Amino acid sequence: MVSSPAPAPTTDYAFLAAELRERDAAAFVHVGDRFDDDQRYLTRFSGPDRDYAYVYVDGEAVLCAPALFEEQARREFPGDVVYAPADLDAEAPGQQAVEVLDAYDVGADETVLVPQHLPHDAALYLDGAGVDLASTDAVAAARTTKSDAEVDCLRAVQASAQRAMARVETFLAEAEQDGTALTHEGERLTSERLRREANAVLAGEGVDPAANTVVGVGETCADLHFRGDVPVDAGETVLVDLSPRGPHGYYGDLTRTFVVDAEGGWERRAHLAVQRAQDAAFDELDAGAGVAASLVHTETAAEVAAYGFDTGYDADTGFTHETGHGVGLSLHESPSLSDDVELAAGTVVTVEPGVYDPTEGGVRIEDLVVVTEDGFENLTDYPRSLVPEPREWV
Amino acid sequence: MVSSPAPAPTTDYAFLAAELRERDAAAFVHVGDRFDDDQRYLTRFSGPDRDYAYVYVDGEAVLCAPALFEEQARREFPGDVVYAPADLDAEAPGQQAVEVLDAYDVGADETVLVPQHLPHDAALYLDGAGVDLASTDAVAAARTTKSDAEVDCLRAVQASAQRAMARVETFLAEAEQDGTALTHEGERLTSERLRREANAVLAGEGVDPAANTVVGVGETCADLHFRGDVPVDAGETVLVDLSPRGPHGYYGDLTRTFVVDAEGGWERRAHLAVQRAQDAAFDELDAGAGVAASLVHTETAAEVAAYGFDTGYDADTGFTHETGHGVGLSLHESPSLSDDVELAAGTVVTVEPGVYDPTEGGVRIEDLVVVTEDGFENLTDYPRSLVPEPREWV
Repeated sequence: MVSSPAPAPTTDYAFLAAELRERDAAAFVHVGDRFDDDQRYLTRFSGPDRDYAYVYVDGEAVLCAPALFEEQARREFPGDVVYAPADLDAEAPGQQAVEVLDAYDVGADETVLVPQHLPHDAALYLDGAGVDLASTDAVAAARTTKSDAEVDCLRAVQASAQRAMARVETFLAEAEQDGTALTHEGERLTSERLRREANAVLAGEGVDPAANTVVGVGETCADLHFRGDVPVDAGETVLVDLSPRGPHGYYGDLTRTFVVDAEGGWERRAHLAVQRAQDAAFDELDAGAGVAASLVHTETAAEVAAYGFDTGYDADTGFTHETGHGVGLSLHESPSLSDDVELAAGTVVTVEPGVYDPTEGGVRIEDLVVVTEDGFENLTDYPRSLVPEPREWV
Repeated sequence: MVSSPAPAPTTDYAFLAAELRERDAAAFVHVGDRFDDDQRYLTRFSGPDRDYAYVYVDGEAVLCAPALFEEQARREFPGDVVYAPADLDAEAPGQQAVEVLDAYDVGADETVLVPQHLPHDAALYLDGAGVDLASTDAVAAARTTKSDAEVDCLRAVQASAQRAMARVETFLAEAEQDGTALTHEGERLTSERLRREANAVLAGEGVDPAANTVVGVGETCADLHFRGDVPVDAGETVLVDLSPRGPHGYYGDLTRTFVVDAEGGWERRAHLAVQRAQDAAFDELDAGAGVAASLVHTETAAEVAAYGFDTGYDADTGFTHETGHGVGLSLHESPSLSDDVELAAGTVVTVEPGVYDPTEGGVRIEDLVVVTEDGFENLTDYPRSLVPEPREWV
C-alpha cells in the first residue's frame, strides 16, 4: 500500500434527532448527488452524479442507494438502513423518500424538514404526499464544528498542498533569467506550467486538485480565480492558491506569493502587510472558542490599513475580500470571518489577508486553522517568504 | 504557453427561445453553482461553490454574477447581460432572478420554465412572486447534441486519458514478478499506486482527474466504482477506468483491462467477448444518425451472451450494466444506450461492454464515440490488448 490516509470520518446523527424534537417534526429528508456536500456529510457516500435520497426518521438513518452503487453505499454509509433500488417501488429519489416515510408511518400533515437547496422535483413529490415541508439549516450548522477525525482529514490534505507548494516554490527558485523572462530547463515559465506542476504533485499524493489551483501572475493576481496561461517574468508577483480535496472529501487551502528577483517596493510592503495582518488574525484567534468572527476580520483589516493599503469590499485596490471562510466538505462553507458569530471549538477557517493593485500585482498568504477551546491550531506549516527558495517538504 | 487547449465552446440559446414559444412561457430561470452542469452549459461560467442565477427572457440571456466573480463572469458568459451584486437589490440568487423577471416586466400568472432540479428555495422565491412554475427538460435535451467545438473538447480530454492509460499500461508491462506478487522499481504494485500514476499524468496534461479514476484488481473489478488500495498480483484482471475533466468542463471516458502473465481461460474468453461485443456495437453505430439506442445495447449484449456469459441488470455475474451513456459536461448524461430513442448526429456516448465474476475478476473496455450523419467517429485511439505492453502515446 502506498500510504495510510486518514480514516473515514463518520457522522453522528444526534443533531438531527435534536432538530426534529425542537421543530416538532417527524422526519428529515435530503436528495442530492455526489456534488452535494450536505449529502456527502449525511451519507459519507461518494456516490454517482445522479441524485439519491437520505431519510432520517424514528432515530434511523436511511439511504436509498442508486443502481450499480449498492455495494459501495453499504460500505460507506454509517447509518442504519440501505435500500437497494429493487427494495423500493419508486424510481425517482424524491418518490423513494416518500416511500420510506410511508414505511415509517409518517402521515400527511406531519412536518418534514429539508435543506433549502433540496431539488425542486423532490420537494414536489413530498408536497404531493401531503407532508408539511419546512426548511432547516441544521446540516450546515452541524458541519461547522469538526470532529477530530475530520480535522485529521483536513490536516492530511493540507500537508499534500504544502508538498505541492514546495514543488512550485522550488521551480521558481531554480528559474533562469533571460532579461526579465524566466525559464526552467530551457522552457518559458508560465502560470499554466506551474499549475500543472502543482496538480501533478497533488495527484501523485492521492488527493484531487479539484480544478481549484490558481496561479496568478502580476496584474492577474487581482483576478481572484485566474486560470489562464500567461508568462512569468522576474519582478512579478506569483500568487499560488491550492485547494485540493482529499479522499474523504475534505479540502485543503493554502496560498503563498513569490517574486523572483524582487526589486520594487510595492510587493515587499504588501507582503509585510499581509504577514502582519495574518499575525493580527492569529492574535485574535489565540483567545480560542468564543472569539467573534467579525473581530478577526476587523483586526486583520486594520493591520493592512496601517501599511497604507485600502480595505473594503468596494475598494478598487488593497484588501478587497474577507479574511477567511470555513473549510470542510465544501471549500467555502460556514462561517465567514466577517459573520456576526462566535467561533466554536472545532471550527476550521482560512486566514488569508491579501492586497491587490492591478498596476502592481497581488499578494496573498493563506493558512488553514482549527479553533480550539483555548486557542487555535494552525493546520499549516509552510514558510511565508516572498523570495522563493528550494524546498523539500514532508 | 504550454499548450493550445481546445477553444471554449459557446451556447446557442435558440433552443430556449423555441421552448418558451412552444410552452407559451415568458421566461426560463435556473439557479445553481459550479457543480451544476446545466448551469455550466447555460453560462459557460466556472463559478464558485455557491448558487448564482441565470435568466432567459425577451431573447436575452442574463447572468447574476456572484460577488468576487464579476470579472470572470464577464469573461466567460456568452450571453447578453451580466449583473454584478451591486446592480441588484436582492442577495439570494432566487430573489435576484425574481428581480430580473420584474425588470423585464414578466407579470404574475405568466409561466416561467425551470429545470426539475432547481433548488427548492429558488422555487419558493419564484412562487412567492406569483409566476407559474413549470418544469422543462429542454436544457438536458439541448446538451445531448454536441457542437463541433464541444466534440473538440471531448477529443482533447480523451487524448489526455489515453496518455494516462499508456503510463499505467507501461507500468504493468515493466512490473517484476516475485512469485505472483508484482513490484515496480522495488515497490509493491497496488491499485492506489496505479491510480496515482494515472492521475499525475492527467494533472500534468492540464486536465482534472476529477476524483473518478477507478483501478479494480481481480474480484474488486466487479465493484464498478472501486477506489480502495489492494495489491496487484500476476494473473489478476486490472481494470483501469479514467474519466478526467478538461478545462472547459467536458469529460473523457476510457477503460482498458490488463492481466500480467495471464494463464487462466476466463479472462481471455471475457476479453474476447467484450472486444467482439464492442465491435457489434460499432457495427450498429455504423448506421449513423437515427440508429435506435436500445438496439446498440441489445446487439452488444447478444454478443456477450454468445460467449457464454450471463447478461441482464439482475444477473450476479456477466454483463450486468448497460452498454453506454452520454458524456459531455456531465460524465453521465442523456442518452443511455438502453433508452428507447434514436441517436441524433452529434450525440456522444461511451461503448463499454464488460463482464464480471466475483470469483474470477472483471473485464471491461470502453471507448468514447460521436454519432455522425452517416456513421460514427471513435474519439478514442488506444489498443485493446489484454497483455500490457510499453506504450508511448501522443
